[in-house]
Amino acid sequence: MAADEIAEREKQPHFARLLQIEWLADQPNGAKARVAVRDDLLQPFGTLDGGVMSSVIEDLCSRTTALAVHGEGNAAMGQSINVNFLRPITEGHAEVTARARHRGRTAWVWDAEVRDSADRLCAIGQMTIAVRPFPS
Amino acid sequence: MAADEIAEREKQPHFARLLQIEWLADQPNGAKARVAVRDDLLQPFGTLDGGVMSSVIEDLCSRTTALAVHGEGNAAMGQSINVNFLRPITEGHAEVTARARHRGRTAWVWDAEVRDSADRLCAIGQMTIAVRPFPS
Amino acid sequence: MAADEIAEREKQPHFARLLQIEWLADQPNGAKARVAVRDDLLQPFGTLDGGVMSSVIEDLCSRTTALAVHGEGNAAMGQSINVNFLRPITEGHAEVTARARHRGRTAWVWDAEVRDSADRLCAIGQMTIAVRPFPS
Amino acid sequence: MAADEIAEREKQPHFARLLQIEWLADQPNGAKARVAVRDDLLQPFGTLDGGVMSSVIEDLCSRTTALAVHGEGNAAMGQSINVNFLRPITEGHAEVTARARHRGRTAWVWDAEVRDSADRLCAIGQMTIAVRPFPS
Repeated sequence: MAADEIAEREKQPHFARLLQIEWLADQPNGAKARVAVRDDLLQPFGTLDGGVMSSVIEDLCSRTTALAVHGEGNAAMGQSINVNFLRPITEGHAEVTARARHRGRTAWVWDAEVRDSADRLCAIGQMTIAVRPFPS
Repeated sequence: MAADEIAEREKQPHFARLLQIEWLADQPNGAKARVAVRDDLLQPFGTLDGGVMSSVIEDLCSRTTALAVHGEGNAAMGQSINVNFLRPITEGHAEVTARARHRGRTAWVWDAEVRDSADRLCAIGQMTIAVRPFPS
Repeated sequence: MAADEIAEREKQPHFARLLQIEWLADQPNGAKARVAVRDDLLQPFGTLDGGVMSSVIEDLCSRTTALAVHGEGNAAMGQSINVNFLRPITEGHAEVTARARHRGRTAWVWDAEVRDSADRLCAIGQMTIAVRPFPS
Repeated sequence: MAADEIAEREKQPHFARLLQIEWLADQPNGAKARVAVRDDLLQPFGTLDGGVMSSVIEDLCSRTTALAVHGEGNAAMGQSINVNFLRPITEGHAEVTARARHRGRTAWVWDAEVRDSADRLCAIGQMTIAVRPFPS
């Protein structure tokens, strides 16, 4: 049901679709998503914009939390994010893997890592997703 | 010179252009940028995607640092970002103001705030931009 | 009442007392605390340990939130902290000023800055304090 | 040599000694330290002060980086820290495990986790340690 409503909403224009994020896994123990590098996602000096990496982390953690809590009448909203950028990405794709380290009643806390096509670690992040009763 | 080269590069497709970020001020003491809310920038439940706010903070701090250090042969690269989301934005625009709190030889440290069209505080952030000799 | 109970508890041994934190202002718009540099608070190479700066930020934000919400039957618990260290402190004191940027029903979000005796900016931070009904 | 000088300095009063941190492992792939809960480390409401957790993370990452880079004439200085607190600790000990995820020429980036005596996850963190030529 939750998945159905979310799938329905994801047919509409939204940011993850503008980025062309590909959802690869929905498990809280190993959620995964990927974005292909293209000119539209670079910063002016030719590397993948750090904002893209932060956005994929944010959208992956938010979406996976939403899939888990939406059925109980709860909404998932990003509360905070922290990302350390380690290595630039210039081609291929960026793949984000995230793991829910804490699934509390009011917040889920995730860690995440971003790897390039050669499986090199390019960024690490932590993200808190607030869980709140859905506004009725 | 730096501004010229950066302006030239900004004519090419890149992420800030995909987001349609409008640059309003380039001063390190009060850099400012704005993005208009549109369907493409929402998350599936209708509020501005947190990734957009993080991205505008990142691009504003990176660009303003680059404008200041590029002339000395240095590149500006995002090193870390931290954002706390306080209040959802559903319409109008998001305006980011950032201030360089530290301008070191190897890193600039910024704080930033995001406000909506009604001037309400919607997010606060901190961003570190690494400053490195431009690869020759 | 809240202030009374907190004052009573603060007579017992606790971490802020081990650090010898001096509370200078309790206002959410400009909370302030100070710690004097002494050998016990240095890291082995002679500068104030970054952990001390993080701890004073944490304790100041937690305590000021607690003073505000305790009377309504709520507890204040640190949820997350982010600190950027800008400049080492080797003598005199470290003074922390913090400002509540958001006072939500379930969380307060603060920003903070640390200055040395010469009023130079030495660190900036952001701190989220969770507000929860006091366990009965 | 580096280890010798650091060991010598650690005989003097310093913050990790005030906290009574016990160093358990010095490997960048799995550094480990522990602190026993005692009254002096609690916040006024009886749980381990979050500042203690941040401090052990900071000191463990700084010290392990220093042990690795000191021999090459480099100093290790905390540049930024981010911690999410997940679960209070009231007794026993807090054990911190940290892993260097990136060992750059100018910065090491760590992730860390804090567990209680029952091996429950109580906090996660990310820490950047700047690596700089030792002032001569």
